[in-house]
Amino acid sequence: MSAAGVVEDAGSSRDPPSSTGSAKLLTASSASGPGWTRVSCPCCMSDRVDPLVLVKLGQKVRPETKRWLLKLLGTPQKDGGAGLLAHPGEDASGDIMVLSAPRCTLLQATEELGLCKKYKNEEMEAFSYEDRDNFKDSDKMEVFLTLAERQYIVKYELDGTRAQREIKIPGLDDRYALQPRDNIWRKLTSAGVVVDTVALHDQAQLRALSQAWYVGNQLAQPLDSVNSYFGTSLAFYFSFLDFYTWSLLPPAVLGLSIAYFSGEVQKEMVESVSGSQIIADDHESPGISGHMIQAVFSMLWSTVVMELWKRRSASLSYRWGTLSLAERFAEPRPGFHGNLGVNPVTGRKEPLFPEWQRDLRMALVSVPVVGLFLGLVVLGMMMFYWGEAQVKRIHADYDSLLSQTFLYLPSVLHIVYTNVLATVYKTVAEALTEYENHREESAFDNHLTGKVLVFTFFNYFAVLFHIAFFKQDVPLLRKRLASLLIVTQLINQVTEVVIPYLVDRFISAPNRAETEDDPQEDKFRNQGSLPVFPGLFAEYIELLVQFGYLSLFSCVFPLTAVLLLINNLTEIRSDAYKVCKLFRKPFTAPVANMGVWQIAFEVLSFVSVVSNCWLLMLSPQIQAECLQGELSCTNVLLLAVGMEHVLILVKVVLSVLIPDEPGWIKKKRLHIEFKSMQALRQQKTVLGQS
Amino acid sequence: MSAAGVVEDAGSSRDPPSSTGSAKLLTASSASGPGWTRVSCPCCMSDRVDPLVLVKLGQKVRPETKRWLLKLLGTPQKDGGAGLLAHPGEDASGDIMVLSAPRCTLLQATEELGLCKKYKNEEMEAFSYEDRDNFKDSDKMEVFLTLAERQYIVKYELDGTRAQREIKIPGLDDRYALQPRDNIWRKLTSAGVVVDTVALHDQAQLRALSQAWYVGNQLAQPLDSVNSYFGTSLAFYFSFLDFYTWSLLPPAVLGLSIAYFSGEVQKEMVESVSGSQIIADDHESPGISGHMIQAVFSMLWSTVVMELWKRRSASLSYRWGTLSLAERFAEPRPGFHGNLGVNPVTGRKEPLFPEWQRDLRMALVSVPVVGLFLGLVVLGMMMFYWGEAQVKRIHADYDSLLSQTFLYLPSVLHIVYTNVLATVYKTVAEALTEYENHREESAFDNHLTGKVLVFTFFNYFAVLFHIAFFKQDVPLLRKRLASLLIVTQLINQVTEVVIPYLVDRFISAPNRAETEDDPQEDKFRNQGSLPVFPGLFAEYIELLVQFGYLSLFSCVFPLTAVLLLINNLTEIRSDAYKVCKLFRKPFTAPVANMGVWQIAFEVLSFVSVVSNCWLLMLSPQIQAECLQGELSCTNVLLLAVGMEHVLILVKVVLSVLIPDEPGWIKKKRLHIEFKSMQALRQQKTVLGQS
Repeated sequence: MSAAGVVEDAGSSRDPPSSTGSAKLLTASSASGPGWTRVSCPCCMSDRVDPLVLVKLGQKVRPETKRWLLKLLGTPQKDGGAGLLAHPGEDASGDIMVLSAPRCTLLQATEELGLCKKYKNEEMEAFSYEDRDNFKDSDKMEVFLTLAERQYIVKYELDGTRAQREIKIPGLDDRYALQPRDNIWRKLTSAGVVVDTVALHDQAQLRALSQAWYVGNQLAQPLDSVNSYFGTSLAFYFSFLDFYTWSLLPPAVLGLSIAYFSGEVQKEMVESVSGSQIIADDHESPGISGHMIQAVFSMLWSTVVMELWKRRSASLSYRWGTLSLAERFAEPRPGFHGNLGVNPVTGRKEPLFPEWQRDLRMALVSVPVVGLFLGLVVLGMMMFYWGEAQVKRIHADYDSLLSQTFLYLPSVLHIVYTNVLATVYKTVAEALTEYENHREESAFDNHLTGKVLVFTFFNYFAVLFHIAFFKQDVPLLRKRLASLLIVTQLINQVTEVVIPYLVDRFISAPNRAETEDDPQEDKFRNQGSLPVFPGLFAEYIELLVQFGYLSLFSCVFPLTAVLLLINNLTEIRSDAYKVCKLFRKPFTAPVANMGVWQIAFEVLSFVSVVSNCWLLMLSPQIQAECLQGELSCTNVLLLAVGMEHVLILVKVVLSVLIPDEPGWIKKKRLHIEFKSMQALRQQKTVLGQS
Repeated sequence: MSAAGVVEDAGSSRDPPSSTGSAKLLTASSASGPGWTRVSCPCCMSDRVDPLVLVKLGQKVRPETKRWLLKLLGTPQKDGGAGLLAHPGEDASGDIMVLSAPRCTLLQATEELGLCKKYKNEEMEAFSYEDRDNFKDSDKMEVFLTLAERQYIVKYELDGTRAQREIKIPGLDDRYALQPRDNIWRKLTSAGVVVDTVALHDQAQLRALSQAWYVGNQLAQPLDSVNSYFGTSLAFYFSFLDFYTWSLLPPAVLGLSIAYFSGEVQKEMVESVSGSQIIADDHESPGISGHMIQAVFSMLWSTVVMELWKRRSASLSYRWGTLSLAERFAEPRPGFHGNLGVNPVTGRKEPLFPEWQRDLRMALVSVPVVGLFLGLVVLGMMMFYWGEAQVKRIHADYDSLLSQTFLYLPSVLHIVYTNVLATVYKTVAEALTEYENHREESAFDNHLTGKVLVFTFFNYFAVLFHIAFFKQDVPLLRKRLASLLIVTQLINQVTEVVIPYLVDRFISAPNRAETEDDPQEDKFRNQGSLPVFPGLFAEYIELLVQFGYLSLFSCVFPLTAVLLLINNLTEIRSDAYKVCKLFRKPFTAPVANMGVWQIAFEVLSFVSVVSNCWLLMLSPQIQAECLQGELSCTNVLLLAVGMEHVLILVKVVLSVLIPDEPGWIKKKRLHIEFKSMQALRQQKTVLGQS
């Protein structure tokens, strides 16, 4: 059998018994020697094998373990292997292994993942392995599947290896013996055999991508190339960043004109930035102020933008073939556990975990714990205010140099406290989400992201909300907002772009200096030395916080949109640079949308109505009139509440009226639905007749 | 061909050339002679034919037209006919025709409609004609399909007849010549050939149903029998009525205990009913009042009830086989028009009408017209108040008998105005919805219902909202509500039950007195003399208005739920009686839920938070404290607004957290999805290979 052949092959890769083998290691720049494990299936024979993934092995892995692993990787899935192509590296004793995937494995995984591909009639259709010949380019894997998809499939196959019976891994302790249905890759990782799995860059593609993306002064991003190189999740982030940045134009223009035409607003701006109080000339304009126009505009704007984004997101998802992902029908994620049973949906034998038990865990454990941490944030804030009052009193009493240093103590303590809390929380959130035992990877991600997001957002905005709703001090809020917008963004830009660039240019790069002559292996190994891509959480939360500043407090500081627009134009480039150069290439699962972030932005857009109406009511102008008795306080409040209700109503109506997907996508979706209905009927017939 | 055979047959039904024909007219009570049109398909041969539908023909229809019609009805669908069984009546010159449907037509329509039926493994599966033998009871049509379904299918086939080429109908004017794709049944109706189409009662089933439904004192309704006899839309109405009535128990108990324990509430109740002001003993209970408990409870209650109803609705829909209706994939409704083209979803040739054009018509015509009518309601109300003030002034000035009669003038005029407006509006709404040109019957119904519903609801509640929000007069509101609840419900009960019963018992029944010896035909003809079933709009709007009283103003009158509970317990019976006895049996299309009514109830449940918080703030107790300066007005308002926001948040969270369908249905749905995905893939293969 093929498995046996693999073993013969793998043991002595320097001098392979079948150097005339079908597969050759060919990369864009140089051709490595043969040495790939053999494929059994004739259609997978190819004279070109792209190295996709690098596996780093532990230093102390015995040769027999490595041989067993090579065999495992090459064995077809139906026999309990990963169905991949493995290359044991130039040096038999080396600690790396390069993986690729044969055509059949790629195509089968494409079907399992539910990816859509171009059919011969140029329409996107859910890929079917049996019908592979009718899909366009299904014989050229490097065209048919994107690099990101192929790499993800390799990882998917690795993660999906499960022992079919009790197995003792050669060269390993009995502790690591495999039970049936044990996840082999996890076991190997915990045993220290596999240290790391790295997706490999394709230098030529990367160079082309960076040229098109951030090197010049181009306005549009090459989103399709981003998708094919980095995968849909990154492509969705950059598409959203792009969409959102352009949609900042209208509020920016409005903000600029308000700032230009309204003397009062200019005065406030200067005050908030300079910090000094300019003597008011009491020449207040009556009626509707610029703030109010800005607020109403931005409240409606946010709904329209989010609805239009949903439509764009749907068309991107169609374009990138992720409209009908079948994660629910695939195997559960590796970390999922439960009692073995028959899945009522797919009829396959797999671990099952009752829904109600998960709900119970979320309700009784996750929610209280998250609430506790939010409480700790509030507690920290209160302690900070209390401490500040204390040190001020002490300083007033003693007025010494020591007491002056004391003045900084609360801030420092608060920062330390917040950071420690955030770190602890992250660990707790991961543990909680793991405990909730989600079946699908995306559900796990969304719940984890949701938890961290609520906390982070709360952490960012607690102080601002406190100022707005409890202190009710609009000038202070404006000052704080201006400093956050300007200072933090400057800091972000520096830490995100300048420092990494310098590090990369002067510290890392010389160490990694590659020449054409370097053995391919060293180049691969170098890629493993880059830091792991930290995920998109930080990028998305930055956008969300921005969006929060803009929508929650837009009426306070009209120039927010302008500042954000400028910031994002550079942000696009710096993020692109970061992703391309400073981290390892990430493995990204195909996704159909932004997931939980979509919801976060929409929720924020609704909360913004409440906060804006409140802030408008608190605006000094109206408060002054209120005090002078020109308007009764109650009437002002009633007006604000009424306005709030009307705006929320308008937003709800808008979001119902604007369809979430363009008409042509709806038609395509219905068409697919119709065809599968028909197919189901015909299939029943076939089954009924047989 | 069969069509030819039909013609031979139909001409002389008294002496049919094939009196040994396969089909016999058999009803539960008596056996009529043969005379049914022949079926060509051997599987449709049956020794029992249930008469399902009665067609009344015009008086002046010529024999050749009748013969042509009989042929059309018997011709299979693929040849442009209706594929039905027709019986020209005992008397060849008679003006009625009885229709039934052969097995093949029924089964094909079952598939087209997307009905689910029990598979051999006892699961509900979307019916597939090709696979008919694997469905349970698919050889016994009267078990396999409910009476309501079979009758609807007959109507569906009649409505679906379309000319395949230019045809001149014999015996008719050239004006009525058919163009290709003309709807034949509509043309025949407009030409006066077909006067009426009546679904026939099955007296035995009807007797059994009424026994189980309203004759005894049973608490539970026989919902499955209602579904099988009257169809899903009526069954959904009665299920909802049932569910809603039982869910009134908790608020009723709460209301009763509040009324019992709170002296203040008792006093208000008596006041509002008696109309006299009882001297307050100023012994006000401090803190949270009964009103507040009642209000908060009923606000949360309404969300929970609606969410639980959605779950129940989903399981009923599964049980009744309407979970996967395929209306979108079927032929458009008869009234739909557009340019002929290829439907991108189904690939069939049919009239197409662009979505954007419909949206445009709705936005530019329907919305402004509906708005205009709502404005007219408000105008009427303002005129009424103005008129009332005028006549009061005149009466005070003159104080004569004439001026006293004048006092009633505004009310009378207002009632007349409102009724005229409602009638005009109904016609306008129908015209508007027709103009919007919806493709599916259900979309048409929902848009029409939605329009009428908004208007009717506005009409009912405009006065109450005016009192609550503008006059801010809580005692007046309470009085009005009490009178509405008690008086209108009494009137409703009388008009709905007593009068129809008397009419039926003493006026209609003697005329319809049937004996066993009556010819079957006369019995059928009698059914046609009953008034047409007016649809469920009136029933649903009654429930919605009730629900409105209860949720919008619950804090004003705690006994609302008790009164409604009592009312509904009789309502169930009176509605059942009405449906069974007083109207023709309706044709009801299978539906999967309550449609637009579901949304109306949910919207109301959210609006109720706003109105309740407002009313609580206006409550005399709080207003008194406010005036006495114990609480600042602004703080009370802030509190009310805060409470409102929290309650809305809780309601949103509740409705997100309670899943809309039970877990087992979700699994079934996913299973179907999974299977159709697989089927689609396999089908592609078959197509690809062929």
